[in-house]
Amino acid sequence: MSEIEKKFRKLETDNAPGQEVRQAAKLEDGYLKGESLEGQRVDFSHGDVDAHEPTPGAFDEFSAGVMRGGSQAYTEYRGALDIRDELAPRLADFTGADVDARDGLIITPGTQGALFLAIASTVSRGDKVAIVQPDYFANRKLVTFFDGEIVPVQLRYGEAETDEAGLDLEELEAAFQSGVKLFLFSNPNNPAGVVYSPEEVSRIAALAEQYGATVIVDQLYSRLRYEGVTYTHLRAVSTASENVVTIMGPSKTESLSGYRLGVAFGSKTIINRMEKLQAIVSLRAAGYSQAVLKTWFNEPEGWMEERIARHQAIRDDLVALFRGIPGCTLRVPQAGSYLFARLPELTVAPGDFIKALRLQAGVIVTPGTEFSPHCADSIRLNFSQDHAASVAAIERLATLVQRYRA
Amino acid sequence: MSEIEKKFRKLETDNAPGQEVRQAAKLEDGYLKGESLEGQRVDFSHGDVDAHEPTPGAFDEFSAGVMRGGSQAYTEYRGALDIRDELAPRLADFTGADVDARDGLIITPGTQGALFLAIASTVSRGDKVAIVQPDYFANRKLVTFFDGEIVPVQLRYGEAETDEAGLDLEELEAAFQSGVKLFLFSNPNNPAGVVYSPEEVSRIAALAEQYGATVIVDQLYSRLRYEGVTYTHLRAVSTASENVVTIMGPSKTESLSGYRLGVAFGSKTIINRMEKLQAIVSLRAAGYSQAVLKTWFNEPEGWMEERIARHQAIRDDLVALFRGIPGCTLRVPQAGSYLFARLPELTVAPGDFIKALRLQAGVIVTPGTEFSPHCADSIRLNFSQDHAASVAAIERLATLVQRYRA
Repeated sequence: MSEIEKKFRKLETDNAPGQEVRQAAKLEDGYLKGESLEGQRVDFSHGDVDAHEPTPGAFDEFSAGVMRGGSQAYTEYRGALDIRDELAPRLADFTGADVDARDGLIITPGTQGALFLAIASTVSRGDKVAIVQPDYFANRKLVTFFDGEIVPVQLRYGEAETDEAGLDLEELEAAFQSGVKLFLFSNPNNPAGVVYSPEEVSRIAALAEQYGATVIVDQLYSRLRYEGVTYTHLRAVSTASENVVTIMGPSKTESLSGYRLGVAFGSKTIINRMEKLQAIVSLRAAGYSQAVLKTWFNEPEGWMEERIARHQAIRDDLVALFRGIPGCTLRVPQAGSYLFARLPELTVAPGDFIKALRLQAGVIVTPGTEFSPHCADSIRLNFSQDHAASVAAIERLATLVQRYRA
Repeated sequence: MSEIEKKFRKLETDNAPGQEVRQAAKLEDGYLKGESLEGQRVDFSHGDVDAHEPTPGAFDEFSAGVMRGGSQAYTEYRGALDIRDELAPRLADFTGADVDARDGLIITPGTQGALFLAIASTVSRGDKVAIVQPDYFANRKLVTFFDGEIVPVQLRYGEAETDEAGLDLEELEAAFQSGVKLFLFSNPNNPAGVVYSPEEVSRIAALAEQYGATVIVDQLYSRLRYEGVTYTHLRAVSTASENVVTIMGPSKTESLSGYRLGVAFGSKTIINRMEKLQAIVSLRAAGYSQAVLKTWFNEPEGWMEERIARHQAIRDDLVALFRGIPGCTLRVPQAGSYLFARLPELTVAPGDFIKALRLQAGVIVTPGTEFSPHCADSIRLNFSQDHAASVAAIERLATLVQRYRA
């Protein structure tokens, strides 16, 4: 096998959210038990932007961008300056630390684009990178793609107190001691939906400073926070601001994924590299789409509160249903719209159960192995769905767990 | 300097089209001669989509995509299947060889996105890659970014017959003999606007097959062809179809750059890798934007003919103006909207003349060194501009050439 074949072998997307469509439905699967369960198909691999619609005014801003013509189509690679000027103070206000519109902020094609550029701008061949297990599956793939060496740090979310995420801070320090110069994590955690405590975030900042490491923090879901949760922005507690890059975007909570928008802000050195790379990766985030960011952190009064309340109500119903399945465990998500549930022992392999769920119950979930090699018995669900349909889907899931229980 | 600093040092974008805005206007420039010239500013670094508007119906298709909601926002990473199904036969018809909608076609964030993914999917550290001098500046940067070794092949466009591009085919064969496994070129050539003859294209195909090499051909401008030009699609004359990837997009001729759309088609192995990589680079081309491709190769009757005629008229006027500047040479572009003109000897360095052009005449051009180290005395202009404004701009350029002539 050639070098390039080996490299791409590590980037398998067969189990990635939304790619099920490329798997042939195998009718020969002999292990399927019982009849199919009727009900509306629910794809928990990503949010349903029809059930939770894009921010009001987003399309109008896009249309206005098209009308502006060339100046909106051809922006700087890092995005239009007037939009960066609008965004910077809002992001500073939200995160509690200054954002430099000219040199410290880049608009990217989605949060995925920001992550890609940030990692490409900080990881060289052989560099040690600490990543959390479990965490967003692309983190691992990105580090591997750039020939970095992954140093895993465990997130003991299941055993932690309800007001902390459960990061193994000793393991993180050992990672830094072993030569790690980049730490990459999502807060709230994807997939577990837990939020790092002020103490955890402060300790991460202190360790990174002590060991001269860079931290990339993916805060994609940091606006969708449920009752009683304290959220700490790493950049607000870090004094080494040139070593911190924060990534956010309006694809999830704001349902704007179809426009492909994200931002990265913080370290000017890294943002500058990211722009150079963006120039050869995709030039810029789609020019007209960038105009949609005018609606971001600028939603109508009460809109975000209502969005959070609706998600909290779905969360509560689904958590109750999962807790009603004997042997199933999960932590109540503190933020975001992911549920990460551990299933009881089954008679079939987890991957086969997930396929049975899809074929027999019309329920699509993402396997835990996408997030950590230690999470094979867990599944991730994005519960930003139609409320009633998602409740019915979890009832079908519960039926199938019973059917396949060991 | 760290490895990563060295790597990004090679990706400088200061002279890249459209990035002038990030250069501070240096008032201390002592070399400026004479007064500024009045006139409408023309940015020849990219096309003017206000002068040549996006394809009719593009915005309507985008809007319809937004209305479709989630199904359009969340497509497969390689793009929506229904759109690929529509595009494949049109692309096959245009290029003269089958296109497999399911496995042999990917929708990308612009043609730049397609180039990035294609090169990342074929170049490993240390691989030798043949690229043309001059050619699109990102080609060189992309190969360098992936630690490939560039083997230059000269395009003697200035000395060639008017019905050929002037590729040094002996140099290309020597490159393959030296171990090159990838050849990357644009046809029509960016920046020179010349089209490879049927003989040149057939010879490229034959050599690639003989040496088992992959060819990535950037045909971004292959629809905008002027009177009397014969265009040969590499994929139509190649029998090793798994070794050819063709890249196109509607950003230029169709003025749809603001939507960030491109496609790559051909080799299933490479397209498959490109999708895996897309999953971690930016997930997908913006979902709603993908819908705009429904207008592509599907324009109203006569629309393309008129677009070509308008560009041919601008081309002819600008070529005449350049030929009126003593010592200035250029070939008449056969396709696309780039002019690549060689300037006479000047009293200032080419980079300083380009800056003077911008500061004193409001004329922005791209330096030839972006395309080849041997083209320091040339400048590239994208003449997809307002006709009258571009004529006036070249008259100002002619005045400045006289002013700074050696």
